[in-house]
Amino acid sequence: MSDIEREVRTTAEKAREAAADLAPLSRAVKDHALLGMADALVQHAESIVAANAEDVARAREDGESEAMIDRLSLSVERIGSIADAVREIAELPDPVGEVVRGSTLPNGLELRQIRVPLGVIGLIYEGRPNVTADAAALCLKSGNAALLRGSSSAYSSNTRIVEVLREALDKTEVPTDAVQLVPGTTRDSAKALMRARGLVDVLIPRGGATLIQAVIRDSTVPVIETGEGNCHVYIDASADLDKAVAIAINSKTQRLSTCNTAETLLVHSAIADRFLPLGLKALRELGVTVHGDDQVREIDSEVVPATEADWKTEYLSADLAFKVVDSIDDAIAHIRAYSTGHTEAIVTDSQAAARHFVSRVDSTAVMVNTSTRFTDGGEFGFGAEIGISTQKLHARGPMGLPEMTSTKYVVTGDGHVR
Amino acid sequence: MSDIEREVRTTAEKAREAAADLAPLSRAVKDHALLGMADALVQHAESIVAANAEDVARAREDGESEAMIDRLSLSVERIGSIADAVREIAELPDPVGEVVRGSTLPNGLELRQIRVPLGVIGLIYEGRPNVTADAAALCLKSGNAALLRGSSSAYSSNTRIVEVLREALDKTEVPTDAVQLVPGTTRDSAKALMRARGLVDVLIPRGGATLIQAVIRDSTVPVIETGEGNCHVYIDASADLDKAVAIAINSKTQRLSTCNTAETLLVHSAIADRFLPLGLKALRELGVTVHGDDQVREIDSEVVPATEADWKTEYLSADLAFKVVDSIDDAIAHIRAYSTGHTEAIVTDSQAAARHFVSRVDSTAVMVNTSTRFTDGGEFGFGAEIGISTQKLHARGPMGLPEMTSTKYVVTGDGHVR
Repeated sequence: MSDIEREVRTTAEKAREAAADLAPLSRAVKDHALLGMADALVQHAESIVAANAEDVARAREDGESEAMIDRLSLSVERIGSIADAVREIAELPDPVGEVVRGSTLPNGLELRQIRVPLGVIGLIYEGRPNVTADAAALCLKSGNAALLRGSSSAYSSNTRIVEVLREALDKTEVPTDAVQLVPGTTRDSAKALMRARGLVDVLIPRGGATLIQAVIRDSTVPVIETGEGNCHVYIDASADLDKAVAIAINSKTQRLSTCNTAETLLVHSAIADRFLPLGLKALRELGVTVHGDDQVREIDSEVVPATEADWKTEYLSADLAFKVVDSIDDAIAHIRAYSTGHTEAIVTDSQAAARHFVSRVDSTAVMVNTSTRFTDGGEFGFGAEIGISTQKLHARGPMGLPEMTSTKYVVTGDGHVR
Repeated sequence: MSDIEREVRTTAEKAREAAADLAPLSRAVKDHALLGMADALVQHAESIVAANAEDVARAREDGESEAMIDRLSLSVERIGSIADAVREIAELPDPVGEVVRGSTLPNGLELRQIRVPLGVIGLIYEGRPNVTADAAALCLKSGNAALLRGSSSAYSSNTRIVEVLREALDKTEVPTDAVQLVPGTTRDSAKALMRARGLVDVLIPRGGATLIQAVIRDSTVPVIETGEGNCHVYIDASADLDKAVAIAINSKTQRLSTCNTAETLLVHSAIADRFLPLGLKALRELGVTVHGDDQVREIDSEVVPATEADWKTEYLSADLAFKVVDSIDDAIAHIRAYSTGHTEAIVTDSQAAARHFVSRVDSTAVMVNTSTRFTDGGEFGFGAEIGISTQKLHARGPMGLPEMTSTKYVVTGDGHVR
């Protein structure tokens, strides 16, 4: 075992101990600690900004893009927003202790299925230091110890933020080791975290497809897949034209770089003649490059020819794949072949078409006459989310606090035997 | 890719197609198919018994134990019971389509979280051919395609049972490929199933610890861990003596080979003097060998000295590890160190002790004044179970039909954009 592996395992063992003491704590104790964390962030904002300046300077030296530097940069004002987000998490209901199912069995046994924390949650994420406080707060509220493994580019910022949070925990009943930074900035430290099966209960990667796939490939700890979204909007023959244009435009252009942004538009041939001129004009005005099949290009020769790769790509840019289909089943078949199972939308005025689409499209979220951009914990009213799961086991879709828990059965009798 | 790997993948691809067509089918269609399957089993019982006779003859040639041969053997009567179990599954409520959560959002969007099938479920199990029909029926009822990989020792029986089930499905709207046997009897065929990530949604191993650990180690498909149970009974200082003896005896001896059988008894030192003579006498009369620590052996010198290995062992035999502890926290610490997290019981008359134990013992089921033997889908009133999950993600405890599903969000609007 290498030194860094040993160090990471020691950290994970401390998290495990902390998790056992954290699990039975009441909401009041946890909320008090969260408010203390928020206050400490505000109080130490300047020292966090100073640590962040080191990361930013390094990023500039390395010639990083301005977009990346903007995501990395913290100011006293931004830290105030981060603290406010922690306070909002304190206000959310505590999922721990919720009775999910309960009954009295015929023999008089009282059966209760109760939400309990998962235990130790490992987070692997990219260069946004705001995730550090946010993930720590979500884990603490749900009774889980957090092992935070941020990007090396934000290491100084993350180190200082975690110091501040731990100092705040020192003054509370919450064990300080409930929030820890994973030591080291190398791939080896991330790998050691991925191999800590038995110490870490679940790993949640947050970031781009490359990061997520690497974690899935290398981890022996169970992973919750998040975020990849090759999302589709299907315009049915019976769609209202104005709603169809509005939803297509909003799904693609309201924000280009999010996982719930639409990447392919499928249009029924019966409405294509009417939809295409309007839709293509609106997309062009917004600077979107359309990659279309032959039928789209017949109507508008400026459209770039679509290749197989276009149907597969999560562009995350001002590009849109565009195809005319001859039936709703052709649209469903295309989605089945190319979707990552995140979010698909149908625009239709037909009850039968909506019902057919909803029952046959197997994605995390299926939207009826609604923009794909609504798949989001905040929009769904969950208050906060740790990520959007695109897998079928455990949690699917935006993961709020209840999705960060497991359950246990408590069975109470009076000397019952079989 | 080897021939067998190609064959297994082709089978899995057919399952994937079948799963897509199976998912939207109504309860009525699925129940009709289940009743047809049950009738077909009864109708073809003799040919199943004939196929089974080949497996039994092979087992005898190989010198297998009588217990193993008994588990393997089918008779017309046993097939009748298997068919009855399939009919009982038809009577259970359909989990698919249940609205788990629903609300109307402030902007008027209707949000529904709905149960949907997982898709394709792979079952890897040992030499009990009754599992074949049972697992196929549970998968079908929950809208999932079943890929069945039984033991090579039951291959003739399983092949004939699956033939009969598929002939029954041929006459219904349910796709025939919703039930398939994984081709081949070698380790390579099981491994190919474990590597079919993207085609198979979840693998559930049913059997001994060795099988389960091998599947966890080799599988890239998500696995639900089942069954390992190093279960504890803790007799608190305040326990009622009669209930304590009854629960200890029942937890250990009612059936020796099940995962919810107790393997270690922890007794508080304040009650040890009164409990030990009664408890040890009762255990000895039932033929149980007690492996005790020094304090137990002081009271009864016939007790075998316990070693570290005894605390760790899931005996599944007439052996019991036995330890005196000085406090409830010592009992909890012992359980944390050695338990597999299946089922632990406390016998106590103290509300405070029960509450403390329940909140700090992190196992699938925590029993208060109740035998460990009650952790069971049938006992819990679930009607049927595919196994008992001992992991924290997705499902924990006895897995009924709802635990064989995922969910999806359906969001309905009227042209809603962000």
